[in-house]
Amino acid sequence: MVIFFSVGNMNKLGMFPVRLITGLIAHGRGLCPRPLRHLSGMTVSQIDEEVAKLLQLKAQLGGDDCKHTFVLKTAKGTRDYNPRQMAIREKVFNIIINCFKRHGAETIDTPVFELKETLTGKYGEDSKLIYDLKDQGGELLSLRYDLTVPFARYLAMNKITNIKRYHIAKVYRRDNPAMTRGRYREFYQCDFDIAGQYDAMIPDAECLKIVYEILSDLQLGDFCIKVNDRRILDGMFAVCGVPDEKFRTICSTVDKLDKMPWEDVKNEMVNEKGLAPEVADQIGEYVSKRGGMELVDELLQDPKMSQSKQACAGLADMKQLFCYLELFKVTKVLFDLSLARGLDYYTGVIYEATLASTVPAQQQNDSASEEGVSVGSVAGGGRYDGLVGMFDPKGRKVPCVGVSIGIERIFSIMEQKAEAEKVRTTETQVLVASAQKNLLEERLKLTAELWEAGVKAEVMYKKNPKLLNQLQYCEETGIPLVAIIGEQELKDGVVKLRTVTSREEVPRSPGWCPLGAGIP
Amino acid sequence: MVIFFSVGNMNKLGMFPVRLITGLIAHGRGLCPRPLRHLSGMTVSQIDEEVAKLLQLKAQLGGDDCKHTFVLKTAKGTRDYNPRQMAIREKVFNIIINCFKRHGAETIDTPVFELKETLTGKYGEDSKLIYDLKDQGGELLSLRYDLTVPFARYLAMNKITNIKRYHIAKVYRRDNPAMTRGRYREFYQCDFDIAGQYDAMIPDAECLKIVYEILSDLQLGDFCIKVNDRRILDGMFAVCGVPDEKFRTICSTVDKLDKMPWEDVKNEMVNEKGLAPEVADQIGEYVSKRGGMELVDELLQDPKMSQSKQACAGLADMKQLFCYLELFKVTKVLFDLSLARGLDYYTGVIYEATLASTVPAQQQNDSASEEGVSVGSVAGGGRYDGLVGMFDPKGRKVPCVGVSIGIERIFSIMEQKAEAEKVRTTETQVLVASAQKNLLEERLKLTAELWEAGVKAEVMYKKNPKLLNQLQYCEETGIPLVAIIGEQELKDGVVKLRTVTSREEVPRSPGWCPLGAGIP
Repeated sequence: MVIFFSVGNMNKLGMFPVRLITGLIAHGRGLCPRPLRHLSGMTVSQIDEEVAKLLQLKAQLGGDDCKHTFVLKTAKGTRDYNPRQMAIREKVFNIIINCFKRHGAETIDTPVFELKETLTGKYGEDSKLIYDLKDQGGELLSLRYDLTVPFARYLAMNKITNIKRYHIAKVYRRDNPAMTRGRYREFYQCDFDIAGQYDAMIPDAECLKIVYEILSDLQLGDFCIKVNDRRILDGMFAVCGVPDEKFRTICSTVDKLDKMPWEDVKNEMVNEKGLAPEVADQIGEYVSKRGGMELVDELLQDPKMSQSKQACAGLADMKQLFCYLELFKVTKVLFDLSLARGLDYYTGVIYEATLASTVPAQQQNDSASEEGVSVGSVAGGGRYDGLVGMFDPKGRKVPCVGVSIGIERIFSIMEQKAEAEKVRTTETQVLVASAQKNLLEERLKLTAELWEAGVKAEVMYKKNPKLLNQLQYCEETGIPLVAIIGEQELKDGVVKLRTVTSREEVPRSPGWCPLGAGIP
Repeated sequence: MVIFFSVGNMNKLGMFPVRLITGLIAHGRGLCPRPLRHLSGMTVSQIDEEVAKLLQLKAQLGGDDCKHTFVLKTAKGTRDYNPRQMAIREKVFNIIINCFKRHGAETIDTPVFELKETLTGKYGEDSKLIYDLKDQGGELLSLRYDLTVPFARYLAMNKITNIKRYHIAKVYRRDNPAMTRGRYREFYQCDFDIAGQYDAMIPDAECLKIVYEILSDLQLGDFCIKVNDRRILDGMFAVCGVPDEKFRTICSTVDKLDKMPWEDVKNEMVNEKGLAPEVADQIGEYVSKRGGMELVDELLQDPKMSQSKQACAGLADMKQLFCYLELFKVTKVLFDLSLARGLDYYTGVIYEATLASTVPAQQQNDSASEEGVSVGSVAGGGRYDGLVGMFDPKGRKVPCVGVSIGIERIFSIMEQKAEAEKVRTTETQVLVASAQKNLLEERLKLTAELWEAGVKAEVMYKKNPKLLNQLQYCEETGIPLVAIIGEQELKDGVVKLRTVTSREEVPRSPGWCPLGAGIP
């Protein structure tokens, strides 16, 4: 908001604010201020009351004192979707929802905001990106940051121990937007999660199968699904000599390896996070490894790694996972020790899918991985066995594993691909038109009959539109048929049905739509 | 958030708040308070500063002095949708979207929050119900209050002068929730609007046709669509002697007639809004009138009403509207002079649809109209020819008319109706099961083949589930078929396909799904 104060009413900022505010409050309450005695004893609700009063005064001032320059825009990092984008979005959603339904998932929905406390302590260093709502009295609220924490809250609140659900909704992050690459502050997530105590790695394999199916069905070109496990990471940190309390923060640093070269990551570990350089170097050796089942076997025999129970448990599960993925015919999976994923709540397997180059190189200005161009992650997820327990009053755990499809980047790519194509934004089948004047009533009547019969029909909102304009409207919007009413047709009790592209006309079609008594 | 103060730190509420707040501020700034001199000259940014300080102190109080009891709940006035509710919601949305598409509408989407200024001055007395986001640096933002203002902003921003679009999304109002009656702080709106310069009342009639079709298609029982016109209301106010500057506020009071008896409304007009009692009585006489085309004619001949040019223009359009509604076969429409609708932006025809009694009388605790029980408005809208111009830098007008379906109340009714029914929440067609142990690999392989073939299939995430449990799962979730694998079937290269309800089995079905080489 840009506010201009008129000079006459404006005081220099910072002058006697205490006097001013005291006066305002006293005025607001009709009381005289007293000298300060002590400050203990102010309660939260008293502060609330005073804040509300100040804000009311502010609103009054705003109305009286200032001039606005209104800027016509959406909020930073957000965008509208126009009808064309919506048509593409609907197509993408249908593919994804079909996949979720094919796997037997239910769906739920949760509010866009949660109690602030619900989100507290779930996102590690990312917490600063949470949008808070203004304290307008009542509960403190925040916009949801993802769909996983609300899902865990939902499970705990309703004491649900088994569910396979998907949830498609917008989430909010006060991040630096990079909108040309599909990174927004408001963006859709498409989440699929399986909650319940099951035999190891079967639901986890299904999540990866879903990523594989969706990325294949969307035909976005080649992709790669990287997998790792928090226990393998933690075990690796332990055997390399990272102190326990630094596991999470070092994990966040490792997570930056897809955006920064190893030297910068090492720098952050040593100089910012206080790791010994030798420790960092040992980590550097491990996180350069990537491979398949053979790498799992190699690490299971690694003299250092095999000392960690945690790492061994993670590696054993990874082996199992690769078996199931083979049965599910999921390929393009890469075990990558540099994959870390920043969020605090993951406890087991983690994964992330990236597309091979689809964006021209000049658009790749903010990151370049060693393999060259990449549009970044389009799906990610993992196992979070502790999150529901954080919400349960008795700490009862519900093991969960899930995946989130990063749909905005996919939209951006699909939009680029559709640039040359003609995309229809309506489904209208027929326009009811007239060739002569004074036939509005007949057009309206026929249109209503078509609607009644379930036909998608439009009529122009003019008393006497020109036939040419009516035909042009069909061509512009892709309506395939025109039903033309004229004096002669009215006499004969028929309409002329014209195919817009071929201009072929069928003069009589009483069986095509429920006419008869409808037209006089 | 529930905060418990330890008794030692707690003062009685309301004691010396001025002293307390003065002390707090002085403490916060390291200054001594001064006696009050005068209050002029406080600027908006100074108030902001002081408010921020108070809130920081509040946060400190919260953090240091009190114990938290984390409450596992959704924010006040909001709810989760469970899978059953989602299944019902999907059904309702499909009916509504089908109607919108039948009428040739496109769809758009806008962000959940807008610049605060975009919403300023659009909602009259309802503005206090807008949710603001916390000022975390950057733009001041508010959650959208409806879909109409964002739509107008979208049109102005993109210089669109013609569009017929629908928009289904959640909106936010800090209202007193009445959740048993389907009134929430977060709720869906389903809007359909027609923007463009067209011949009078044709798009308006289509909006009413849409209300009529949707309420009929949803089979919610009988309903009534009330219509009126802002120009008729304003003309009536003028001829009754209401001063120009009081039109809007008196309009808000008239709007309460569906919730309060006339005596209370009159009281508010006279005692709160300062109207002469005779003026109020004259209004009272008009707003008791309701009828059809004959009432329009009566008022056109009314000696007082006919003096107002505005009223006459509104009445002439109302006559035209009734003609078109007859052509469209829209019935159940009532011209009701008491219909006012509070929002500032309406300029012409306004309408509102209410359902006849569907909710038991004991749930009707907060309002009772004279006709008896009513669940209140389920759709409403009108013409707003000036709103887009408020956003356009050159004030260019785009005439608009639209309707919003109040879907939450409809959900509540549909949920009540579905209470006895069994609602399936997944679409799974077949469960892949085994009768013996150690067949997990074969089950996974077959399931993957079914997915590949587009069959909606599930498999239990256990190595050795009991057949009984697998069958029970089908019965609970409504899966109609089980594909059973056993040693013998594997040898023969077939599966046994069982219909869950009839227990009928088809032992050989190689043509039913793509088996063959898939099973060893």
